[in-house]
Amino acid sequence: MKRIGIAGATGLVGETLLKLLESGPHQVEELRLFASERSAGTKLRFRDREVEVRELDARACSGLDVVFSCLEAGLAAKVVPDIARHCPVIDKSSHFRLKDGVPLVVPEVNPDALAGHKNIVANPNCTTIPLAVALAPLGRKFGLQSLSVATYQSVSGAGRALLNRLQYETEFVAMKRAPDIKGSPLKAQIADNLVPQIDDFDKDGHTGEELKLMKESAKILGLPGLRVAVTCVRVPVSVGHSLAVAARFAQPVKPKDANHVLKDAAGVVLKTGGDYTTPAEARGKDPVFVSRVRPGAEPNELLLWVVTDNLLKGAALNAVQVAELLFKEAK
Amino acid sequence: MKRIGIAGATGLVGETLLKLLESGPHQVEELRLFASERSAGTKLRFRDREVEVRELDARACSGLDVVFSCLEAGLAAKVVPDIARHCPVIDKSSHFRLKDGVPLVVPEVNPDALAGHKNIVANPNCTTIPLAVALAPLGRKFGLQSLSVATYQSVSGAGRALLNRLQYETEFVAMKRAPDIKGSPLKAQIADNLVPQIDDFDKDGHTGEELKLMKESAKILGLPGLRVAVTCVRVPVSVGHSLAVAARFAQPVKPKDANHVLKDAAGVVLKTGGDYTTPAEARGKDPVFVSRVRPGAEPNELLLWVVTDNLLKGAALNAVQVAELLFKEAK
Repeated sequence: MKRIGIAGATGLVGETLLKLLESGPHQVEELRLFASERSAGTKLRFRDREVEVRELDARACSGLDVVFSCLEAGLAAKVVPDIARHCPVIDKSSHFRLKDGVPLVVPEVNPDALAGHKNIVANPNCTTIPLAVALAPLGRKFGLQSLSVATYQSVSGAGRALLNRLQYETEFVAMKRAPDIKGSPLKAQIADNLVPQIDDFDKDGHTGEELKLMKESAKILGLPGLRVAVTCVRVPVSVGHSLAVAARFAQPVKPKDANHVLKDAAGVVLKTGGDYTTPAEARGKDPVFVSRVRPGAEPNELLLWVVTDNLLKGAALNAVQVAELLFKEAK
Repeated sequence: MKRIGIAGATGLVGETLLKLLESGPHQVEELRLFASERSAGTKLRFRDREVEVRELDARACSGLDVVFSCLEAGLAAKVVPDIARHCPVIDKSSHFRLKDGVPLVVPEVNPDALAGHKNIVANPNCTTIPLAVALAPLGRKFGLQSLSVATYQSVSGAGRALLNRLQYETEFVAMKRAPDIKGSPLKAQIADNLVPQIDDFDKDGHTGEELKLMKESAKILGLPGLRVAVTCVRVPVSVGHSLAVAARFAQPVKPKDANHVLKDAAGVVLKTGGDYTTPAEARGKDPVFVSRVRPGAEPNELLLWVVTDNLLKGAALNAVQVAELLFKEAK
């Protein structure tokens, strides 16, 4: 019997969390939903009842077993520390992820990082999670040294506004018309197009999303010296993030040896022999799908195709799994 | 005044060639259009006249200055050598590209390869061309050693059938329905999805398209030992191929030094300072657009984002430029 709060309950990840809690192993004794003033008063269905969304107030989190925070980074920076005075918070924003003393946890990869947490646990970026799940077991066995990654990120990773934007623009494309891009959060159309920019640029020309993947991967995998080169690209896909990965190890690795490791790896579904997963197939499913494992350009390099539902394992599911670990620890 | 033939005139690349010849520098004295029996009799507009498409017959190419062959590889293998007995052929299929004695030419990169041709000149793959245009000048300056590439390839690269298929499936997505994928040449839906397979798999798990990019790049750049790791992915984009490239050189390379080379490179339009090109913006334009040049994971690695119109520089425009070189040589 758990008492659970969700801050930012009306967003896409909040909605996915609600669905997971409905079908999860823990009976939810109490559910408190919070959102911005704008969404306060909204009623959300949870099983057979309706729960009113309240305006976020840290004090109202008192007595909860855990709060899932699905707020954007700026707001999370302000309110998460206040909530953490009352109960543990699993925060999906980027704000706390790289801070010393804040565990950044993918349960299949680094559950021990939770030890000694101070009521704030960070949930990694939605591309970092599948990358870590796929690479951790290979890295443990063969010694991971560096990565080249290109991402194919769905619009739902940026929230409901961009998901609706893709749908809106797709209606133009279906009629063979140029999409109206007035009011888009992106610099270009996203339907029938790609946008190779997620978040702002730093002085070197890396985007915020690229920096997240580089730094968070190193922290989660416990490899501070991990060298990561990455290009993050938004693609006209509603749900499902994909990654083309070239991973270099400390020793030569044969694809069949990598497959042997991956077929039993926690959280991974491996496909072999010309079978592979597309984002549409991964939608609504829990695992990280790994396929197309093959030789790279050198004997110590492997290529992989990694796909996951970015709202599930990429966000809400990982957070729920972190909560399970917290509940176990609290016993 | 030139006499020109197009074999496979009714396909997407044939159509693009016709448009280029209409606006090109050479007065077309005679135009003979050929296609399969199925398309014979079709009339295509060229400037103010209509030209009837005839069934392909090598003897009917007699007296032409050049034939552009836009046939699929199996058919090209049979008929291109016959046509070449009558006149030079620029063949866009994959069949002859890697054969000894057949020049594989990107005019900005290896025009000298044309010397001594035996009436068959191969036009490279539509992802290889932009990659070679972007990397040749950097390689000449800094010594190219290896590449990690992930492609984002539009459906028009597979011809009209897949372009129509995307449009058909997009109409379902616009209505929030699951696309009907009966009869698709792909293993999964392409609208609201990605397909990480272009062409068949070899025994190592590389696709035909990936092997083309690896081998053709090495031949065009004149670097037989070039190591290339690549993942080729079909994306729900109508026209415009994009590549996320990590290039490693024989020496450390600063992005500003790379930009200095690229800004004057033949066939390249460079964007800097947070500006970049999307495939929708590249459509209908001639150049290879290079942007997002930035540091890689090591001092000798650079990352680049490369986009081109796959029907233009990726196919028809490159072939027309090769023809220009042939005409010059014939003078």
